[in-house]
Amino acid sequence: MSPRSRNRRLVLASRPSRLCGPENFQLVEEDIPQPRSGEILLQTQWLSIEPYMALAMKGSMKTTTQPGADRLLKLCDRYIAGVELGAVMCGPAIGRVVKSLHPEFAEGDLVAAYSGWQEYAVDDCQTSRKICADAIPAPAWLGVLGIPGLTAYVGMRRIGCPQPGETVVISAAMGPVGSLAGQLAKIAGARIVGIASGDDKCHGLVESLGFDTAVNRLHPDFARQLAKACPNGIDVYFENVGGAVWWAAFALLNTFARVPVSGLASQYTQTHRPTSPDRTAELMEKLQLRRLTIRGYAVFDHADLESTFLREVPDWIRDGRIHYREHIVEGLEAAPLALATVLSGRNVGKMLVRVA
Amino acid sequence: MSPRSRNRRLVLASRPSRLCGPENFQLVEEDIPQPRSGEILLQTQWLSIEPYMALAMKGSMKTTTQPGADRLLKLCDRYIAGVELGAVMCGPAIGRVVKSLHPEFAEGDLVAAYSGWQEYAVDDCQTSRKICADAIPAPAWLGVLGIPGLTAYVGMRRIGCPQPGETVVISAAMGPVGSLAGQLAKIAGARIVGIASGDDKCHGLVESLGFDTAVNRLHPDFARQLAKACPNGIDVYFENVGGAVWWAAFALLNTFARVPVSGLASQYTQTHRPTSPDRTAELMEKLQLRRLTIRGYAVFDHADLESTFLREVPDWIRDGRIHYREHIVEGLEAAPLALATVLSGRNVGKMLVRVA
Repeated sequence: MSPRSRNRRLVLASRPSRLCGPENFQLVEEDIPQPRSGEILLQTQWLSIEPYMALAMKGSMKTTTQPGADRLLKLCDRYIAGVELGAVMCGPAIGRVVKSLHPEFAEGDLVAAYSGWQEYAVDDCQTSRKICADAIPAPAWLGVLGIPGLTAYVGMRRIGCPQPGETVVISAAMGPVGSLAGQLAKIAGARIVGIASGDDKCHGLVESLGFDTAVNRLHPDFARQLAKACPNGIDVYFENVGGAVWWAAFALLNTFARVPVSGLASQYTQTHRPTSPDRTAELMEKLQLRRLTIRGYAVFDHADLESTFLREVPDWIRDGRIHYREHIVEGLEAAPLALATVLSGRNVGKMLVRVA
Repeated sequence: MSPRSRNRRLVLASRPSRLCGPENFQLVEEDIPQPRSGEILLQTQWLSIEPYMALAMKGSMKTTTQPGADRLLKLCDRYIAGVELGAVMCGPAIGRVVKSLHPEFAEGDLVAAYSGWQEYAVDDCQTSRKICADAIPAPAWLGVLGIPGLTAYVGMRRIGCPQPGETVVISAAMGPVGSLAGQLAKIAGARIVGIASGDDKCHGLVESLGFDTAVNRLHPDFARQLAKACPNGIDVYFENVGGAVWWAAFALLNTFARVPVSGLASQYTQTHRPTSPDRTAELMEKLQLRRLTIRGYAVFDHADLESTFLREVPDWIRDGRIHYREHIVEGLEAAPLALATVLSGRNVGKMLVRVA
């Protein structure tokens, strides 16, 4: 696997006005960069395409990290920094080390790095880690075993805490976060109800991923169908979408329900504020009367759960208790359209770009 | 203290349309009831007047309790049942036992009971407990040492969890819940900022209750003044009001901020929904990016904290570390107007009606 002499990169050419599409990116060619002491040169194998990238394309996010030097906190800094105009598009990737000036990485190692949309990347190794693709194929380390998987794990273990017999509803349930969140709730003994965009996905949730039932959010009668799917109400609502899906689930929340807010994919591409009447008072009233917990979280703040996550989930995958779906497209140039697909919810499973 | 022959009671004559006022009540006279086996007859000494009563006047609240037989859960059932038309107005009270057919209560005992707006009440003792007024006067057991005090304690100990150096903002800070919540946060080492309606109350918060500063929510420039009072943002916002106060505090919430939602007094008397544009998407976005926790709670679900509450807070009162203010009006007939006063925020301190 000898490096070519040139590095192709997708840089951010413009901030998105509404939809994030190919017009926001420019393909540029440069010389392949060379690592300095403590750095490695990676040849990109896989890119992970994720909804948060729509936010990153808008620039720095309005938040902060907690102080700390661990790998996930440093990674959080990179996520929330967003992308500068003219800079390479950010994102998680898996690369193979083609040159190492870092004592802990050797040529040939597979590395999960935040190295973005480019064929080669120099990486400072501060937020990266080696992965082993012997038992479970490499791209899984961007999905079910990567940040999306850990996001599901944290949301269920630390916030949702589903109990046997409870009803757990998962939005964006066919995505890499939602599909694992649901299966973890199932292992915990809950009844799991998926929400997905399209009847095909709903079918897949029940047939392939063990959901008890699933509801198509594109159906005009969605809210009523969700209510029918949850005759005992909702005890945990795993929020990854926002908007109309949120309100349909909110109406069904039981006393003591927990709502881990992992993402709000439907809102990332909105440019205008709604004009419908304010429902905040209604939200807060029910929150108080029903003693609800709504908690936003980022996986990066929960590094303490990573070791149990990496002990349990690979075992469950090998045992066949946890399944995952992947949606693979080919070539660096496919990344912008892949992102648009993810943002419109048209992918089925974890969206990946095979680069090398 | 021999019982008179007649019992005067305030019954709910009509549901409130907007404001809860004397027109919603009717004074009736009946014979004094007689206790049966397991019951006691109380002569009411004090009534506690609380914002939630505006909800109770509307009827049953849309919520449920958790299963369980402990005293606070049974009390919760009575709170959320609200008041039937024609029934005596509900509410916490302190009464003296004038006749006992219950082995654990003796004539002369002072009892905190959910016995409502009447001069005499037969009580089944299921949600009641004896109090000792030797060291701390009886009405304190309806405020700083009663349900309002425990509400503050649960909100701070279980949800807010203020840390040394953090900024804690308390709404309705001069009320019995808010004033204790603030002082508990102060004891935990936080900087405490009170929100109250009126400059007099703000002055009292700083001078009498040890708040670091206080902001008058009636000031036209309130939101900017709150921001000035919180140069390092807000780490814990103790929510007891809702509405415009909520949004002013929300704008200042730091990453990892916690919001215990104890009450929403400003919303209890609203009859129409707002027409301003929906801000839920904005709320959820910030909740996710800043990793906020917003949690509604009811004191009744946290009986496990009652024993430490009753060990710590009386000590702190005797040590002079915790102060409380009372607003006392005289006579059963004063109760309806006292409630209107509480709902408009014109009381200073815990509102009590001295009945006997």
